[in-house]
Amino acid sequence: MQDVVTTAVEQKELISAIDTVWVAICAAIIFLMEGGFALLEAGFVRAKNAMSIIAKVIIDITFGGLAFYTIGFGIAYGASNGWFAFDIGITEADLGLGLTVSNKLFWFIQLGFAIAAISIVSGAVAERMKVWAYAVFVVIFCSVMYPLAANWVWNPNGWLALRGFNDFAGSAAVHAMGGFAALAAAIVLGPRLGKYDTDGKPVAIPGHNLPLAAVGGFILWFGWFGFNPGSTLGAVGNWELIGIIATNTFLASAAGGISTMFYTYFKYGQIDVTMTINGVLAGLVAVTAGCNILDSGSAIIIGLIAGVLVDVAVIFIDKIKIDDPVGAIAVHGVNGLFGTIAVGLFAADGGLFFGGGADLLITQVIGVLVIGSFSFILTFIIMTILKKTIGIRVNRSEETAGIDAVSFGVEAYTTFE
Amino acid sequence: MQDVVTTAVEQKELISAIDTVWVAICAAIIFLMEGGFALLEAGFVRAKNAMSIIAKVIIDITFGGLAFYTIGFGIAYGASNGWFAFDIGITEADLGLGLTVSNKLFWFIQLGFAIAAISIVSGAVAERMKVWAYAVFVVIFCSVMYPLAANWVWNPNGWLALRGFNDFAGSAAVHAMGGFAALAAAIVLGPRLGKYDTDGKPVAIPGHNLPLAAVGGFILWFGWFGFNPGSTLGAVGNWELIGIIATNTFLASAAGGISTMFYTYFKYGQIDVTMTINGVLAGLVAVTAGCNILDSGSAIIIGLIAGVLVDVAVIFIDKIKIDDPVGAIAVHGVNGLFGTIAVGLFAADGGLFFGGGADLLITQVIGVLVIGSFSFILTFIIMTILKKTIGIRVNRSEETAGIDAVSFGVEAYTTFE
Amino acid sequence: MQDVVTTAVEQKELISAIDTVWVAICAAIIFLMEGGFALLEAGFVRAKNAMSIIAKVIIDITFGGLAFYTIGFGIAYGASNGWFAFDIGITEADLGLGLTVSNKLFWFIQLGFAIAAISIVSGAVAERMKVWAYAVFVVIFCSVMYPLAANWVWNPNGWLALRGFNDFAGSAAVHAMGGFAALAAAIVLGPRLGKYDTDGKPVAIPGHNLPLAAVGGFILWFGWFGFNPGSTLGAVGNWELIGIIATNTFLASAAGGISTMFYTYFKYGQIDVTMTINGVLAGLVAVTAGCNILDSGSAIIIGLIAGVLVDVAVIFIDKIKIDDPVGAIAVHGVNGLFGTIAVGLFAADGGLFFGGGADLLITQVIGVLVIGSFSFILTFIIMTILKKTIGIRVNRSEETAGIDAVSFGVEAYTTFE
Repeated sequence: MQDVVTTAVEQKELISAIDTVWVAICAAIIFLMEGGFALLEAGFVRAKNAMSIIAKVIIDITFGGLAFYTIGFGIAYGASNGWFAFDIGITEADLGLGLTVSNKLFWFIQLGFAIAAISIVSGAVAERMKVWAYAVFVVIFCSVMYPLAANWVWNPNGWLALRGFNDFAGSAAVHAMGGFAALAAAIVLGPRLGKYDTDGKPVAIPGHNLPLAAVGGFILWFGWFGFNPGSTLGAVGNWELIGIIATNTFLASAAGGISTMFYTYFKYGQIDVTMTINGVLAGLVAVTAGCNILDSGSAIIIGLIAGVLVDVAVIFIDKIKIDDPVGAIAVHGVNGLFGTIAVGLFAADGGLFFGGGADLLITQVIGVLVIGSFSFILTFIIMTILKKTIGIRVNRSEETAGIDAVSFGVEAYTTFE
Repeated sequence: MQDVVTTAVEQKELISAIDTVWVAICAAIIFLMEGGFALLEAGFVRAKNAMSIIAKVIIDITFGGLAFYTIGFGIAYGASNGWFAFDIGITEADLGLGLTVSNKLFWFIQLGFAIAAISIVSGAVAERMKVWAYAVFVVIFCSVMYPLAANWVWNPNGWLALRGFNDFAGSAAVHAMGGFAALAAAIVLGPRLGKYDTDGKPVAIPGHNLPLAAVGGFILWFGWFGFNPGSTLGAVGNWELIGIIATNTFLASAAGGISTMFYTYFKYGQIDVTMTINGVLAGLVAVTAGCNILDSGSAIIIGLIAGVLVDVAVIFIDKIKIDDPVGAIAVHGVNGLFGTIAVGLFAADGGLFFGGGADLLITQVIGVLVIGSFSFILTFIIMTILKKTIGIRVNRSEETAGIDAVSFGVEAYTTFE
Repeated sequence: MQDVVTTAVEQKELISAIDTVWVAICAAIIFLMEGGFALLEAGFVRAKNAMSIIAKVIIDITFGGLAFYTIGFGIAYGASNGWFAFDIGITEADLGLGLTVSNKLFWFIQLGFAIAAISIVSGAVAERMKVWAYAVFVVIFCSVMYPLAANWVWNPNGWLALRGFNDFAGSAAVHAMGGFAALAAAIVLGPRLGKYDTDGKPVAIPGHNLPLAAVGGFILWFGWFGFNPGSTLGAVGNWELIGIIATNTFLASAAGGISTMFYTYFKYGQIDVTMTINGVLAGLVAVTAGCNILDSGSAIIIGLIAGVLVDVAVIFIDKIKIDDPVGAIAVHGVNGLFGTIAVGLFAADGGLFFGGGADLLITQVIGVLVIGSFSFILTFIIMTILKKTIGIRVNRSEETAGIDAVSFGVEAYTTFE
């Protein structure tokens, strides 16, 4: 069960060991976020579709994970021409990233990012999408779409990386990428039966088990402390940076929760606790791009804005008849967009508000708009093709009865006797 | 996403990297304990108040976290005169603690202790406290009250630290501090409607979702293996100590669970599984002060005592008409007190039972009594002021209908169809 | 709260610190798996027995943990004659394992393996076993039975270790050991009332709360990334190995989930989401023996086979009238057996399919058959003795009413008002 170390060890070995501990554990924590997505989404939908959405997240992990292993990783981190790479699988070649951990371990932590991105989509298509059509989209997304965005942003030769685009842990590459795919998918799918009344007004369809959603929310909050600090990809040389990232990540999440509480209290006379969970997540999404370079005060301000932005966006998206049962578009799409741009405004070094001029801001805007549009358009096309071929929406009787009973042969809760 | 390390690295850098990995991950695990508190408490109350208590824990994290960032940390770890400090925010100054991690990362792990302490209170005030009054108390507690206790115990110039007070991970500074605040708050608030019948006898109000409480309990149990070992604040030089702490922490928790099982079985003819979870937590709380210096046998004995103490305390507190819906006072207050004193009895070096005389015991007793009294009295005063001004208790109709529906506009479980 | 490190530190200290961080955190993550077992099993049974099964897992941890501390560890890792050792407790003696962490910390990570093994049994005896009889079995299993298997496989002088048996993280020593004990226990106990109709046909008894089971499943999946990589017992010198293990662990789990999804879809026309969770776990169990030496492709193939094997086994076990409410025998017993043997077939170095001849295969087959038979026979004997003495099965009225209400005086869900 172990290796014996008796002779003196080279410093290189020690560095690799330290960084491997860091990355392996952060990667495991990021992986747990999938449980967070699944339970948050399951709690936010109706009981009759709770297990189907958990199944969709398992599809994200399993189909998405194998797709990212066999094809996706090579496209993202192979030798890039700036836009894509064509390597297959995981070699031992130097990826040009200065890694001190093995390529396989680097793959394992990147896996968490890829399946987080697709899990955003699973929430937006809840309660009405066919499972196999979803599986097809998952494979395309994780083998090609997400890897291209990762290539642009994090491959050392990616066109955005070369432009100085700062998307440290993926407000753009993960959250906007997932959020805008979610938007396109929700549009093509159309709203759930009964979501809009005969006058076209949105009808609230409350989540069936909010404590379960809270379990998911706490797991995601925890997971972010692997997601953001773990994006350093090593602790040696980064001991100050890791403290900055963890602190900024916390501050933005706290500010996001607080501003949502105040906003909903003053608007509705009640704190909306469901939206408060989304407010926390919005703060986390928004700080993800710049957590490495923001001052504490900026992290708080970004969180405060994110917490309001998510409320406004949820209402707006509902109003324009895009049905997103769990608020994935508002949390990840809108705040991924905002957080990426915010780096151009708030970066202590190079941000517009700190006298850094508009260069970084322009890069940030271009980067996130390209990624968001790319994700939206491609998803729109793929979903439309799937709609016209194998079909993407369960039939009316299944939607009424619940996907769990019809497609999965189970009920989430069979008996409380 | 990473830093390149190509040249030889100084040993100081390696040490900081190792300790940063240790502290950052323990801190994240400690942070997850908030989810544990929220779900344990939610499961132990009635469904109609489940989301309101989760909201209170989110307030602990968000309001409490920002308060501890802006004000609390400087009071706790600034240049102390033995009783308090006045620094503001997190500087890069040497805190005199011999830290090998950054002050920001040290703040992040301390954050977990501060919000754990206040989360103890959220349980005791469940099902009847007004949310904004609670938020005000959270801010005062995390910006001033808890930081003062932390100053005395853990600041290098704190008066208890200088006396040799041994409260390694906070049986006194976190658990007694939180537990005695919980006691005062529960007294000022008064019992829930219907908790005592017309003859004044306590009426059992069972938790609505014990599996959910178990989710919380397991998360807390896990979190303690970040809480106690992580209090080393670094792994270099501590490799033996970390093994001792983890083992003692486990042994006391197991013993606490076992003694509760036997006690409730022999007393009632049935194992009380709810109390067994509390017995495990009682063992954990009690060993937290001395986990670094106790022998294994002592850890087991302390756990066995804690597991009985919590049962007796829950019944006693119920009998004297203090309504603590989740047993927070018995678990954290009583066992925080016991565990701190137990160090003076059981310490292998300096404990009364090991021939060390009464010096350490006296210090331990003084320390925990001062902290407990301080927390009790201040909370009593603040809660009384809040009661006479903005009011601390929801009105009768809200309490009957449930705080979730009236103050938060949600129901935890809307539909199981 | 910390140690000061000012002078130069010997390299040995740095190595111990790095490996301590790795092992301490992996051990904590493995410990959390107990929560995973408890919640998975609770969700898969009826509500009336949900808390009793959580109590049984708490007994696994507390009684089992203390038994493994006082007696078990010395039998497993003391000076072995090849079959057993007789040391008591945890000394500071060199265990011959080349450890760079303290013996106590090594005990703490081994604890997680011991209580994982017994927790497999708790699932198979669900809904009908007496709690104190179960506690007696737990103590015997964790103080003697499991430690013997661990001695053979992982003690440097164990007869299987000396033969070159490769059971890296315990497909045999943990999972087959637990799974075949579960098989014997389920046989001696007999099926639940109403599990077979008057024609002898199995009646489906669906789990009462599948989202709760999913919480448990995600926690177990996460925990495996401590379980398998943590079995390196140190990161120094293992940085490449840790990446290989994490990747293989993931790939097999994903493949297991996918093959179950396809298998149940083509067989029943519906994806069985409950079985999909079991398929993921089956892939994890099967790859646990060989995760350190398998190629990625082999890990995927092993996962694909495991995902089908678990489906077939569940149906078969049901058919031959062995009632295993949570599928523990199929997941852990059958796939522990398969995974151990698969090493002899798929090992890149020494496996039959890779031109390595039959030597390793024969060792793997012998090892897992001896461990499985040993566990089955001893459990059968102990359970039979317990049955004829103190009794192992709750009476009919308790089984009908539910163990929670009768033996524990609680209901999992008392009110949703």
